[in-house]
Amino acid sequence: MPEADSRPWERIAELTEVGDREALESAVAELPQGEAARVVSRLPAEDQTQLLKLLDPELAADLIEQIPEVQAAALIEQLPPEEAAPILHEMPSDEQADLIGALPEPEAQALLAEMEPEEASDARRLASYLPDVAGGLMVTEYLCYPTSSQVADVLGDMREHSHLYSKYDVQYAYVVSNGRPTGVLNLRDLLLAPGRQAVAELMIRNPLTVADDAPLDELADFFDSHAFFGVPVVDRSGKLAGVVRRQDVEEALAARSGADYLKSQGIVGGEELRTMPLLTRSRRRLSWLSINVLLNVVAASVIALYQETLQSVIALAVFLPIISDMSGCSGNQAVAVSMRELTLGVIKPVDALRVWSKEVSVGLLNGLALGLLIAAAALAWKGSVYLGMVVGAALALNTLVAVSIGGTVPLLLRRMGVDPALASGPVLTTVTDMCGFFLLLSFATAMLPSLSGL
Amino acid sequence: MPEADSRPWERIAELTEVGDREALESAVAELPQGEAARVVSRLPAEDQTQLLKLLDPELAADLIEQIPEVQAAALIEQLPPEEAAPILHEMPSDEQADLIGALPEPEAQALLAEMEPEEASDARRLASYLPDVAGGLMVTEYLCYPTSSQVADVLGDMREHSHLYSKYDVQYAYVVSNGRPTGVLNLRDLLLAPGRQAVAELMIRNPLTVADDAPLDELADFFDSHAFFGVPVVDRSGKLAGVVRRQDVEEALAARSGADYLKSQGIVGGEELRTMPLLTRSRRRLSWLSINVLLNVVAASVIALYQETLQSVIALAVFLPIISDMSGCSGNQAVAVSMRELTLGVIKPVDALRVWSKEVSVGLLNGLALGLLIAAAALAWKGSVYLGMVVGAALALNTLVAVSIGGTVPLLLRRMGVDPALASGPVLTTVTDMCGFFLLLSFATAMLPSLSGL
Repeated sequence: MPEADSRPWERIAELTEVGDREALESAVAELPQGEAARVVSRLPAEDQTQLLKLLDPELAADLIEQIPEVQAAALIEQLPPEEAAPILHEMPSDEQADLIGALPEPEAQALLAEMEPEEASDARRLASYLPDVAGGLMVTEYLCYPTSSQVADVLGDMREHSHLYSKYDVQYAYVVSNGRPTGVLNLRDLLLAPGRQAVAELMIRNPLTVADDAPLDELADFFDSHAFFGVPVVDRSGKLAGVVRRQDVEEALAARSGADYLKSQGIVGGEELRTMPLLTRSRRRLSWLSINVLLNVVAASVIALYQETLQSVIALAVFLPIISDMSGCSGNQAVAVSMRELTLGVIKPVDALRVWSKEVSVGLLNGLALGLLIAAAALAWKGSVYLGMVVGAALALNTLVAVSIGGTVPLLLRRMGVDPALASGPVLTTVTDMCGFFLLLSFATAMLPSLSGL
Repeated sequence: MPEADSRPWERIAELTEVGDREALESAVAELPQGEAARVVSRLPAEDQTQLLKLLDPELAADLIEQIPEVQAAALIEQLPPEEAAPILHEMPSDEQADLIGALPEPEAQALLAEMEPEEASDARRLASYLPDVAGGLMVTEYLCYPTSSQVADVLGDMREHSHLYSKYDVQYAYVVSNGRPTGVLNLRDLLLAPGRQAVAELMIRNPLTVADDAPLDELADFFDSHAFFGVPVVDRSGKLAGVVRRQDVEEALAARSGADYLKSQGIVGGEELRTMPLLTRSRRRLSWLSINVLLNVVAASVIALYQETLQSVIALAVFLPIISDMSGCSGNQAVAVSMRELTLGVIKPVDALRVWSKEVSVGLLNGLALGLLIAAAALAWKGSVYLGMVVGAALALNTLVAVSIGGTVPLLLRRMGVDPALASGPVLTTVTDMCGFFLLLSFATAMLPSLSGL
C-alpha cells in the first residue's frame, strides 16, 4: 500500500476514528524509526488524545517518549488522569517527573492521585527539583544493597527481580549503610566473585557522589573528569537519592544548547512547536520583538540628529542599513565564539579582558578589510573618494566596536546573572547601531563641504 | 597557597619550565573539575607541548580528553610522533580516530607509523569514516565470542582479561559466527546462568544492527525507538565492525547543535577558539563577512533607486534600518523554529507548505502589532498620520514576508542539499531587506504629496 506508506497519519487517523485497537497498534508499531513524532504532529488534536486512549499503555508510553516533551505534556494534559496514570507507570522515573513537572499544578495533582502511592511519592519528589540539577536529572531505578550482604545475596535478588531490573540501566550496584552510600559494586566484579564473598570486600569504597542540587555544568565537569557511566546522587542528609547517568547529562546538555539557540534568535519562554496554539506562539514571539522595536527606535534616533547632513548627502541613506547589518554580523560572530567558549569551559566571566584583547586584533584586521570593501563600493557608485573614506572609516571603526562588545557582553551578562543567550543579541545590536550611525554621520558632517550633493 | 589556587596556570607554567615532573603531575591531578581546559588554554603554546611531554602518558591522555578536540589536535600535532603515540595508546578507539582524523595527512601518517601495528590499523580504519556516521562514532572495544561458547568460557575470558576490559563500557557481549553478529548476551543474564549453558541458548537472537555508513540522524532515531545502551555496527559484508553507544550519539548530537549555532552566526569552517592563530580566525570570519557585505550592497541598492523620494522625505532614512532590523528579527525567529523542528524530526522538507501556512497566521498578527507600534512612533515623532501609515504598512507587510521566508528557507535549503544552518541567515536578510526597502520607499513615493518635507 504505497499510499498508506506515504501518509501514515491518514491511516492512523482513520483507525483512531473507527476505534480499531488492533489495527492501530500494528500501524503504530510499523511506523518507520523516527517517524512517530512527525506522524503524531500531523494528527488533529482530538485524534492524538483518542490514539493514546486506544493504545496499550506500554505502547502509548513508547510513543510519548519519542515526541518532544512539551508536546507530550500537552497530550497528557488532555487525557483523563485515570487513563494517563497507567501510561506514566510504563515510563522511567526521570521522564515521569519531567512530564509531571511540565503540567499545570491542578492536572499534576490529579494525575499523582491516580498513581500508585509509592510511585507518586517518588515522582512528586523528583518533580520538585529544578530540571537542570542532579535531582532533576537522576533516575530512581538503581540496585542498592546493605553493607552486610554477600555476593550470593546480591545475585539472588537480581535473579528474583530480573523482570523488574530488565528495564534498569545496570552498570553498578550501590552499597548503603543507613541510607548513605558506602561503596560501589562493579557488575563485572560481581560476575567473577565467589558467592560467599562479602560485598564490603568487593566494593569500591568511599564512592564519589554529587549533591542533589549540583547544577548541570558541575555534572558535565564531573563526567569530563571521570570515565564513569553514572554517579550516585545524595540529598542534604547524605542519603542516596538516585543515580545520574552520563547519558542523562549528555541529553540535558544537548537540550540546553538547543534552547540557547532558540533564545538567541528570539524564541523565549521555552520551546515553540508549530502544533502550539497560534496565540501562544504569536504572544511569545511578540514579547521579544516589541522590546527590540523600542531598542531600534532608540538606536535610530541618532539618525534623526543628523537630518541636515542627510539632506545634503542623500547617498548616506544607502549606507546606514549596511553599517548596521555588517556590524551586527561581526558582533554576532564574536558573541557566538564567546558563548561556545563558555559552554566548553575554556573561558569564564573573569576572562573578559583577555577575550577583549583577542577580539581587538581580529576586529582591526576585519574592520580594515570590510572598510576597504565598502569604500570601494562607494567610490565605484558615486566616484567620490571622500564618500569612500567616510563610509570605510565608519565601518572599520564600528567593526572594532562590534567585536569588542560582542566578545565581552556574554561574559558580563553571565557575571550579572542575566542569561547571555537571551540578552546578548539585543544589547549588541542596539549599541553597535547607535555607535555606527553616529560614526558615519559625524564623519560625514565633518567632511560636509567635500560631500554635498552626493 | 591562595595565589597558586587562583592562577593555577602560572604554577603549572613554572613547573613546566623547570621540568619538575612529580610536582607537575600532582598539580595537574589537583586541578578542580572542569578547570583543565581553561588552564591549558592559558598556558603559552610552547608550555602546552612541554607539559604533555613531561606528564605520564595516561595522565596526558586524561588531560587531552578534557580539552576541545580542535585544540587537542593542534597540541598533538606539535608533539614528535614518538611522544604522541604513547598518549594516544591510552585513549579509547573512537577518540584516537577523531584526533588522527583532525591532523594533517603527513602528521597523521607519521603518528600511525609510531603506533602498535594492530592499534594503528584499527585507528586508520576508524579515521577513514565520516565523523557523523556509525563508523565514525563507534568504539572497537567490545566483548565478542563465537557462537559455540559456553557461559563458563565467556566468564573465564572476562576474568583473564579483567584489567583490559575494565576500560570497556560493558553492557552486552556479542556473539558472532564468521564475523557476523548472531546474538547479544545481556551481562545480567550471564550473571545468572549456569556455567555449562551454551551462549547460543542464552543470547537474544537476530540482534538489530546498524550499517557502518548510517548517518547520525538515523542513529538518533534508532535510540529514540529502542531503549538500548548500544547497537552493533556491521560493515558492507555484514561483519561486526564496532559498537555505537547511546552516549556517543548523544555527544555527537550535542556537538552538531553547537556547530549549527556557530554556523548560523557566521563562524564557518569548523570551530573557532581564541587560542587559534589570529590569521586563521580573521580569515574564516572574513570569508563569511565579505559575502554578506556584497549581499548587503545588493539589498541597499534598492534604496538608491528612490533617491528623489528620500530627498523630499528625509525622515524615511530613520526608518530604513528599523525595517531592515525588525524584519530580520521576525524572520530569524521563524528560521530558529524550523531548524528546531527539523532537528526534532517533527517536520521534513516536504512539509514546507504546511509550515508556511502556520507562519502566515503568526506573521499577520505580529506584523499588525509591530506595524501599529512603529506607526505610533512615527506619528509621535513627526505628527504625520501619513508617515505613520507608510512605515506601519511597510513593516506589517514585510513581517509577513520575513516569517514566510524564514519558516520555509531552511526546508528548501535542506532539500537542495545546502546546509540550512549556514545559508538561511544570509538568504533571509538579503531578500527581506530588499523587499522591506522597496515596500517603504514605494509606499512613500505613492504618498509623496502628503509626506514632502518630513
